[in-house]
Amino acid sequence: MRLPRFLTPSTVASAHCDLPCGVYDPAQARIEAESVKAISEKYQASSDPEFRTRALIIKEQRAELVKHHLWVLWTDYFKPPHFATYPQLHALFNEATKLAGAGGSKGSADPAVADQLLQKIEEISKIFWETKQA
Amino acid sequence: MRLPRFLTPSTVASAHCDLPCGVYDPAQARIEAESVKAISEKYQASSDPEFRTRALIIKEQRAELVKHHLWVLWTDYFKPPHFATYPQLHALFNEATKLAGAGGSKGSADPAVADQLLQKIEEISKIFWETKQA
Amino acid sequence: MRLPRFLTPSTVASAHCDLPCGVYDPAQARIEAESVKAISEKYQASSDPEFRTRALIIKEQRAELVKHHLWVLWTDYFKPPHFATYPQLHALFNEATKLAGAGGSKGSADPAVADQLLQKIEEISKIFWETKQA
Amino acid sequence: MRLPRFLTPSTVASAHCDLPCGVYDPAQARIEAESVKAISEKYQASSDPEFRTRALIIKEQRAELVKHHLWVLWTDYFKPPHFATYPQLHALFNEATKLAGAGGSKGSADPAVADQLLQKIEEISKIFWETKQA
Amino acid sequence: MRLPRFLTPSTVASAHCDLPCGVYDPAQARIEAESVKAISEKYQASSDPEFRTRALIIKEQRAELVKHHLWVLWTDYFKPPHFATYPQLHALFNEATKLAGAGGSKGSADPAVADQLLQKIEEISKIFWETKQA
Amino acid sequence: MRLPRFLTPSTVASAHCDLPCGVYDPAQARIEAESVKAISEKYQASSDPEFRTRALIIKEQRAELVKHHLWVLWTDYFKPPHFATYPQLHALFNEATKLAGAGGSKGSADPAVADQLLQKIEEISKIFWETKQA
Repeated sequence: MRLPRFLTPSTVASAHCDLPCGVYDPAQARIEAESVKAISEKYQASSDPEFRTRALIIKEQRAELVKHHLWVLWTDYFKPPHFATYPQLHALFNEATKLAGAGGSKGSADPAVADQLLQKIEEISKIFWETKQA
Repeated sequence: MRLPRFLTPSTVASAHCDLPCGVYDPAQARIEAESVKAISEKYQASSDPEFRTRALIIKEQRAELVKHHLWVLWTDYFKPPHFATYPQLHALFNEATKLAGAGGSKGSADPAVADQLLQKIEEISKIFWETKQA
Repeated sequence: MRLPRFLTPSTVASAHCDLPCGVYDPAQARIEAESVKAISEKYQASSDPEFRTRALIIKEQRAELVKHHLWVLWTDYFKPPHFATYPQLHALFNEATKLAGAGGSKGSADPAVADQLLQKIEEISKIFWETKQA
Repeated sequence: MRLPRFLTPSTVASAHCDLPCGVYDPAQARIEAESVKAISEKYQASSDPEFRTRALIIKEQRAELVKHHLWVLWTDYFKPPHFATYPQLHALFNEATKLAGAGGSKGSADPAVADQLLQKIEEISKIFWETKQA
Repeated sequence: MRLPRFLTPSTVASAHCDLPCGVYDPAQARIEAESVKAISEKYQASSDPEFRTRALIIKEQRAELVKHHLWVLWTDYFKPPHFATYPQLHALFNEATKLAGAGGSKGSADPAVADQLLQKIEEISKIFWETKQA
Repeated sequence: MRLPRFLTPSTVASAHCDLPCGVYDPAQARIEAESVKAISEKYQASSDPEFRTRALIIKEQRAELVKHHLWVLWTDYFKPPHFATYPQLHALFNEATKLAGAGGSKGSADPAVADQLLQKIEEISKIFWETKQA
């Protein structure tokens, strides 16, 4: 769960580019992961070989974006004090990005795998928004 | 304003890749535009020439992403019936993408220009969520 | 056959990057669309599964470039007076980019769909060159 | 002015992706090089430091595209018999791509350097169209 | 000088794409970081504003590649048993990617910062090759 | 096994970006080509259609990177005196990049084709290191 946007102070800064601009939001990873899940569902529901090939092509790209957005949060947003407060955070990101890769939703078109990925992103998101309020 | 996520039915689908997956969200354009605004503010606040050059490099990339995300919504999400219902929609997207480009927040590091861009995105977002509920 | 370059006036200008440089040319979209058509023809003519998978991978990329080049023309080259003179222009671009996407030549490997895309680009090109002479 | 498309024979084929699709056209490199030249002219004509920084950012990208389009022609379109017929072709491409790079129009914002690049592309284009007619 | 290739056992495998192919090599990150260092040195040695702007543009790209190659190693090559054996590994990668980003060699054109980055990559490389021999 | 870094002279320079930074290394092309070979082997060893489609997607990307890294060496590192000393160099690069493309390891998933590519890269690498010592 995320604070509705009208409750987040406009000064809530973050940074998702490397200026850094200070605008981070786990929604970026989540949206791509939702796409991965939807693609997996459509893949399973289709028997058209052209559609299924396209689904695998596009799922590969979207899962790569999940990895990228998560890596950016892990390296650019989270700082040593966060890792001290949340000792599981390193492993959580490592598992989440693995779940977006070959051993997860890249290697599998099973929507259940995409769901596991979404759950990990939700765990990260929860911690993210806690640190924003701290 | 957007419905808080826990109020949006999990079946709220959309599609932001060209499968299409059915996962669209104007938040993607908005987050990049918020980055453009934050970069512009930091640019104005700095007198370090290296920092300012980096700010222009990164603003160029982020504004390009704004354009891309808006173009995808315009071409891939919105359908002829939407354009019939919202006759201003074509011009709105054209103005918004121009505001992200050379005549807008690429060509200018004025946060007020980025604010105009964010307002256009908010107008688009409002229409988007109306069509999702229809 | 093409007009030899020494017969094309050096003042033929345009603009396709966001400086803007002022160098626009619908040929960029057309060349990619011709590629999409040729890929579709080769796809239909082949029964080699590896070749056909590669054709779908590459057609996806080329069709994305068609969309991008058209979006750039629509946002960056055409100005409000053009849209006033050509009231069909917004819809024309929207239909053309849709024809390059999932509902068109991305979703289909039918050369006839690529032909429809080429015709839309030709319509745009005709208007483009009229505006250059105005 | 350009030859209207209905006067260009539909059999003008080529190939620019690695399927290969068979659609090659040196116009792709030329258009980007014209952009590089126009950017250089605008750079020289401006004294606005923000504009000039943006010009260098964008010129870098456009010149990279020139290199890419030329490399594709050299590797993918031209075949051993062409190199036998045009023994200068290897050096011509090497010089042209160098003129697009650090020692040429990337490293310099002098429009005269961009002109040299355009002349090399014209030489390549002339040979290209000769081989298409052979 | 490098070991001639015929002396490197053909079984030296690794994996750097998400098939995964099994071909990983920290040299990819190191080469980009060496580029970052060389760019920083040339930046400091030059007083030409065009050259310096280009140096910042390119350094940004190369440092981004350092981050990407390191992230791939961290997520795709290293497995839970490695993290158990090398408990410092998570922090090491986090620090190394931070040193490639805004707080490190993106934000600074100081060759000493690039040197710190190279040292972190060397630490990672040492562990990497130990795990390959295990 | 690789030579430990502390044994490689720090003066081993090169240059792989277009500043130029002076950091070139044929290892970049070789690592991608090793990936292409490993992907081809895994493709042949698998009968899983999803895995095989993913292998073709990723092989396409990796082979493109091989072409890019080779093109950069050919245009940016090698200079006219090198081409005078090694008259076969142009053809060697042309053949190597063709072997990475549609007529080579893009068009074929035969590991033997990837091996031919690796051999060409090794020939280039040998010349490269000779010129570095000259």
